[in-house]
Amino acid sequence: MTAPADAAGGKAEGFLRDLVDQLRAGDTYGNLDRLPDEALLSPFVLTREQRRQIAIACDIDALVEGRVRSFYQAVAASIEKATGAVTTTVLDLNHEGFGRVVIFAGRLVVLSDVLRDVQRFGFNTLEDLGARGEAFVTAAVKHVDQWKEVARDDS
Amino acid sequence: MTAPADAAGGKAEGFLRDLVDQLRAGDTYGNLDRLPDEALLSPFVLTREQRRQIAIACDIDALVEGRVRSFYQAVAASIEKATGAVTTTVLDLNHEGFGRVVIFAGRLVVLSDVLRDVQRFGFNTLEDLGARGEAFVTAAVKHVDQWKEVARDDS
Repeated sequence: MTAPADAAGGKAEGFLRDLVDQLRAGDTYGNLDRLPDEALLSPFVLTREQRRQIAIACDIDALVEGRVRSFYQAVAASIEKATGAVTTTVLDLNHEGFGRVVIFAGRLVVLSDVLRDVQRFGFNTLEDLGARGEAFVTAAVKHVDQWKEVARDDS
Repeated sequence: MTAPADAAGGKAEGFLRDLVDQLRAGDTYGNLDRLPDEALLSPFVLTREQRRQIAIACDIDALVEGRVRSFYQAVAASIEKATGAVTTTVLDLNHEGFGRVVIFAGRLVVLSDVLRDVQRFGFNTLEDLGARGEAFVTAAVKHVDQWKEVARDDS
């Protein structure tokens, strides 16, 4: 189970911890240092109404694309921690907000997900965000367990 | 061996045939119908001097990105023909011309290639283009042979 970053500005745990680490790792100039974990995670939470108000006819905002990439890279990092396998994340998005993400280890695809309406990428709550990430990690760990040799095949 | 489209405007064969089919399949409005195969393939051939003259400081041209995608989709189509496995191609390019392409079947990565200086994507000759495509296909077929069950794992 993932405990969300608590309201008192506490530290995120579980998958949300990995996501925060991912966001801070990409923050070359330390602009985010003064922000608590919760502030970093808040752009990932959108109500249904907020999502509906985002136009999907427009090109994808670079910020949104970065958010999607961070989410899946955090999933990849969690998979690495859980399995010891080295992963690579590949994100293929077209300008209309459709696409696909693949995370692989060795020759094994540990996650493959179709994306649509990426402009509206977001989760109802922090709990949902954490639960979605952990569900991806759990599924990926099963695939690595099933095909250990393929995940280690670096040919 | 790949026979290049012959100078008399003959039909392309082998991998080049698959690449031409790919280009014509993406030509929704039939603009390319009147062009011989060779004309479709000629943008894939660049001399070393021509490549050097292309600036790599600029964003990737949509035409160049489309050419790279067509090349790997033709590789994927050839792999499908050779193995019967259904493939998906994922192309992740950043604005600086670096990236990665992955082709997978089931849970098996049959091709993974790092891309750089994509602005300069091209081959010295049609023969080189055909040989490169076929080399990718040959390698991918070996991986499918080695991990048949993984290539069929649709979980």
